[in-house]
Amino acid sequence: MPDAARRLAELGLALPGPFPPHDPLDAVVVHGGRARTSGQLPRGPDGVLVHPGVLGAGVSVAEGAIAARWCALNALSVLAGALGSLDRIRRVLSVLGFVASAPGFVDQPAVVDGASALLYEVFGAAGRHTRSAVGVAALPRGGAVEIEVEVATS
Amino acid sequence: MPDAARRLAELGLALPGPFPPHDPLDAVVVHGGRARTSGQLPRGPDGVLVHPGVLGAGVSVAEGAIAARWCALNALSVLAGALGSLDRIRRVLSVLGFVASAPGFVDQPAVVDGASALLYEVFGAAGRHTRSAVGVAALPRGGAVEIEVEVATS
Amino acid sequence: MPDAARRLAELGLALPGPFPPHDPLDAVVVHGGRARTSGQLPRGPDGVLVHPGVLGAGVSVAEGAIAARWCALNALSVLAGALGSLDRIRRVLSVLGFVASAPGFVDQPAVVDGASALLYEVFGAAGRHTRSAVGVAALPRGGAVEIEVEVATS
Repeated sequence: MPDAARRLAELGLALPGPFPPHDPLDAVVVHGGRARTSGQLPRGPDGVLVHPGVLGAGVSVAEGAIAARWCALNALSVLAGALGSLDRIRRVLSVLGFVASAPGFVDQPAVVDGASALLYEVFGAAGRHTRSAVGVAALPRGGAVEIEVEVATS
Repeated sequence: MPDAARRLAELGLALPGPFPPHDPLDAVVVHGGRARTSGQLPRGPDGVLVHPGVLGAGVSVAEGAIAARWCALNALSVLAGALGSLDRIRRVLSVLGFVASAPGFVDQPAVVDGASALLYEVFGAAGRHTRSAVGVAALPRGGAVEIEVEVATS
Repeated sequence: MPDAARRLAELGLALPGPFPPHDPLDAVVVHGGRARTSGQLPRGPDGVLVHPGVLGAGVSVAEGAIAARWCALNALSVLAGALGSLDRIRRVLSVLGFVASAPGFVDQPAVVDGASALLYEVFGAAGRHTRSAVGVAALPRGGAVEIEVEVATS
């Protein structure tokens, strides 16, 4: 298990936020050796959504993948806050990826790959995970992607 | 942890149903200190869906939030049936909220807040939870909202 | 708990694949007595999607249910591969079912029943599970159904 914070630094990545949800929601709940995040939108460092909109209706696959990468960075940010350190993440378990999609857009995997790749870059083999990627009608605040992450904790 | 049944009575709330799903589905599965519900539709006391339809195409945010509150009441109803008592719920862990949404409707959080607020009213701090709220094309029987709830049990 | 492999043979069923996802995804992650699959598309023995398209826009409920059954067979295939044997499945816990749906199509349960029925045929009472079934805008590669399965393992 690499030192995740060091790895982020090597990758030149700084975590945005954390941007906690409104009450009575928690950004992360830790229970029974697992931590799950609330759905993360693609917020940039200033909290503004990156590449908002709908895939197949203005947002490209490349832009969607960048948005998904920001979702994953936000997930790491709230996990770091809740766990005290990303090094308490023993492995990533699963990602549930929602992509705002026009009818006929069927390349959700290439979009959510932006999140999956980031998790692998940071955690290596421990960043592998199961995933569902589906195309939804619309997402909160017009976000292009929303992901929920579950990890195993020490 | 408050006495949930007493709290429901104080709030003037009676649980609808329970309305179990058809075979081979279970309303609730309890395993390893966790209980998860099947997706709950906004059924009222008579089993009829409250405010059916689609957000952004006839159902208002206020109506959607009421529907989401009924989803949460139905979740508590099936949990009470499966666990014997709501007092076996140590805390709410997560809510997965699906909102039937026309393209362009992006206020899913305000809709699913109807469910989250009810859980907080009943369980207090133990009712806090992680959540994803997404806008789907359509839901079973024309329901406006469907939620799935996971709780930690004693 | 029946001998699942024998039961499959009695039913005249052969498992397709397994068709593993691309890196860094895992088809299955096993952790803490639970195994979860990645979202499974309705691939037939040749890997080609069965009855692709959208419910309410060309794909019938009967065709969708057949597609969902193939999703479940693919889930069993990757679980058998990851666990070494389906007999390590103590029970099915939950199914998350996504159905590609045109607006107004509200019969998602009858579609995902194709997956639920298969799990019950193979595992009997241990195949009962909680489920959410929702109608999404579009699914990867144009699949009509995608399901994610969680099971308890020995």
